[in-house]
Amino acid sequence: MFRHAVQTRISLRPTFTPHVSTCRWYSSVPAAQRLRVNGDRLWDDIHYTAQYSAPSPGGVTRLCADENDKLVRDWFRDQVTKLGAEYKVNNTGSQFAKFGGEDDSIPPIAMGSHLDTVATGGRFDGPLGVISGLEVIRSFKEQDIQTRAPLVLINWTNEEGARFFPPLGSSTVYAGQSSIDQAHASLSNDGSGVTMGSELAKIGYVGDGPNTFEEFPISAHFEVHVEQATDLEGADKSVGWVEGWHGITYYEVMFTGEDGHANTYPMYGRRDALIGAAKLITQLETLAYSHNGYTTVTNIQSGPWGACNIQSKTKVVFCLMHKEAEGLEDMGAETVRSIKGIAAQHGLEHYLARPVHLLPGDFWAEAVDCVRRACGDKGIGSRTGTAHDSTMTRLKCPTAMVFVRAKDGISHCAKEWSDKGDCEEGALVLGKAVLNFDAYLKERAGKT
Amino acid sequence: MFRHAVQTRISLRPTFTPHVSTCRWYSSVPAAQRLRVNGDRLWDDIHYTAQYSAPSPGGVTRLCADENDKLVRDWFRDQVTKLGAEYKVNNTGSQFAKFGGEDDSIPPIAMGSHLDTVATGGRFDGPLGVISGLEVIRSFKEQDIQTRAPLVLINWTNEEGARFFPPLGSSTVYAGQSSIDQAHASLSNDGSGVTMGSELAKIGYVGDGPNTFEEFPISAHFEVHVEQATDLEGADKSVGWVEGWHGITYYEVMFTGEDGHANTYPMYGRRDALIGAAKLITQLETLAYSHNGYTTVTNIQSGPWGACNIQSKTKVVFCLMHKEAEGLEDMGAETVRSIKGIAAQHGLEHYLARPVHLLPGDFWAEAVDCVRRACGDKGIGSRTGTAHDSTMTRLKCPTAMVFVRAKDGISHCAKEWSDKGDCEEGALVLGKAVLNFDAYLKERAGKT
Repeated sequence: MFRHAVQTRISLRPTFTPHVSTCRWYSSVPAAQRLRVNGDRLWDDIHYTAQYSAPSPGGVTRLCADENDKLVRDWFRDQVTKLGAEYKVNNTGSQFAKFGGEDDSIPPIAMGSHLDTVATGGRFDGPLGVISGLEVIRSFKEQDIQTRAPLVLINWTNEEGARFFPPLGSSTVYAGQSSIDQAHASLSNDGSGVTMGSELAKIGYVGDGPNTFEEFPISAHFEVHVEQATDLEGADKSVGWVEGWHGITYYEVMFTGEDGHANTYPMYGRRDALIGAAKLITQLETLAYSHNGYTTVTNIQSGPWGACNIQSKTKVVFCLMHKEAEGLEDMGAETVRSIKGIAAQHGLEHYLARPVHLLPGDFWAEAVDCVRRACGDKGIGSRTGTAHDSTMTRLKCPTAMVFVRAKDGISHCAKEWSDKGDCEEGALVLGKAVLNFDAYLKERAGKT
Repeated sequence: MFRHAVQTRISLRPTFTPHVSTCRWYSSVPAAQRLRVNGDRLWDDIHYTAQYSAPSPGGVTRLCADENDKLVRDWFRDQVTKLGAEYKVNNTGSQFAKFGGEDDSIPPIAMGSHLDTVATGGRFDGPLGVISGLEVIRSFKEQDIQTRAPLVLINWTNEEGARFFPPLGSSTVYAGQSSIDQAHASLSNDGSGVTMGSELAKIGYVGDGPNTFEEFPISAHFEVHVEQATDLEGADKSVGWVEGWHGITYYEVMFTGEDGHANTYPMYGRRDALIGAAKLITQLETLAYSHNGYTTVTNIQSGPWGACNIQSKTKVVFCLMHKEAEGLEDMGAETVRSIKGIAAQHGLEHYLARPVHLLPGDFWAEAVDCVRRACGDKGIGSRTGTAHDSTMTRLKCPTAMVFVRAKDGISHCAKEWSDKGDCEEGALVLGKAVLNFDAYLKERAGKT
């Protein structure tokens, strides 16, 4: 009677140990030291593109493949083609803007993030990463800085999973953790049955590649992002090098009970799916505190509709977060026990899936080192509490992230804010890290 | 910071004591004793009209003003016009089929119920009441039974509140507890913003009256309904006279917290509206058991969408039921305390409305007596645990209900079932009750 299935779609072990150790330099290479970026232009673009939003007082609501996502994508295309990019859109809608280097036989160094946002989100989380990359490209051109490796600027699709579940909709495909078909079939969180594939097609953003690392290898991936925590603020630092990430697991649970009349059916013996879901949500809070972890329920849908029905089907999506792999696994095991206990207590069937399971891990030392040297004394080391497109690319190539100080650590909220000077510093660190990595590649090539 | 508003839209005190005592007869009047109904035709119509349904294995899903509701309404119109009815549709979509009596100066005796169903409901709750009325009219015609008072058969709109909240969408207007504008503005439970008025207009069922009792008075209202409990089954009886109803209160609560990142935001200090809602649902279960009452949460909606957002807005609709007025009031008071406590604990604002508050009460003794005598030894007295259109009409005129035995008391479920013989008995009792009441009216007129 009780079906219990755990499906794991993205199961990511901690990153493997980088095969190359840290660089010999202790500060940025000379070209990086000379680099300047245009903070005014960067700041203008952040606020200019915030116009592409559904009504969202003080913030931005630009969900994957909605009409505003189309507008900001068109804007991005126009900017990069003006700069002479070789421009492509892949099957899952990600935009790739490639710029030649001195030696185009080398896989490009990538800068990437996402222009989609969550609902009622801010104007920095993801756009800051893409616009910082754009600012680096512009500054390199203006300052006649030519890298040996080509460069590519990427706007990844559906990083947030705000409209379509699961998140990291395109970078999972790139990293071989999902397929184009699976990504296209990602369902809207509103239960409407709309898919990412159909909505991308509607806005004209289903291209023909490149889709995977194998098809389009990159030498490294660097991403600027707001910190979403208060380490930098606490240390009074503008920027940070991101050493790794905490663990995150997403679960989808569907409780199925039985229909019945809301007013007349006795309480005892009911099979009320929503009561089961409510008890799970309540228990998860206690569970997370007791394990020193975090949890958030991000979606609930219940039916049948109506004023007079016992709820016979309730779906809950939630995430568990923990700094330690063991803590995450323990929380997961206890969660599964909770779900089984609740199902038994209320006579519910349950279906359980685990579409994301990301154990904590470290970014690539040689890439992190390039960011660390670029930060200099303006930054500190930190870790991210969430997944990013970079947590996918690191499965394939040296990857590191640049953190920009975020006011009160607030994110996914209209109150999300980073100061202009910090944003400028973040873009500068990104450019310097790319130049450091380009020099590292040259150094490594010289050695072989 | 915390807003607390209780809005009461329908506040119904227990019914006033009927101004006329019970009749002098102890069994049905002679015309009623001779009455027969056609059980085959009744049964056929129940199953024939069940075709007007969205896919709903074993049951019926015919929500107010959907395409199937239009089809069954058209069918009803055709049936009653074939029988020579004076046919009208009112502003809130209710269908009135009037048949002349010997003295058309008397307000008609009404038989009414609803052809709309809940989602994933059965084929008896409400259609049985309308189709039984239709069978009575047909049988009267065939058996040349002429009542002194005219008769009217009513299909009331949105009784269930399955699609649009609140329920009893048209009978509340008729009884002066709501207005046409309020009824038209009833919002869809799916949060789409669609209203009952706009959807009724789409299927061509916004007519011009009669809308209120004052505009179209009736002498009495009789309604057949499946029992939705097991009293008849336990007593091995086909039918029952419904003496009154238990108390029901509906609440709408909206918790409002603050947006934030689902993965990175610390647990402590969050303002998570969904956690608040889950705790409320969990507490309500305990509260209902401890008060010897019932409760059901019938709708939950939470936002913002997405895989990465703390839920900042969660709306919950629920009902409390109790046999005693004091018990219902006590549960309500404790519920309000729970809501305030949860809001304080999680830093949530809350908005609270009480759109339905129906204290327990009794139907009109003279109408109940007509049903009791019609049942004879085939029935027992019982009470309903839910609201019906009859709980509205009783505010204006003598009203009573006929219960038909329901298998295991199951309702609002594909498993809802009443045997053919019991349905036939229910329709027969309805016809007899109408004839008994017609005689009672004549008797009373003779006295004055």
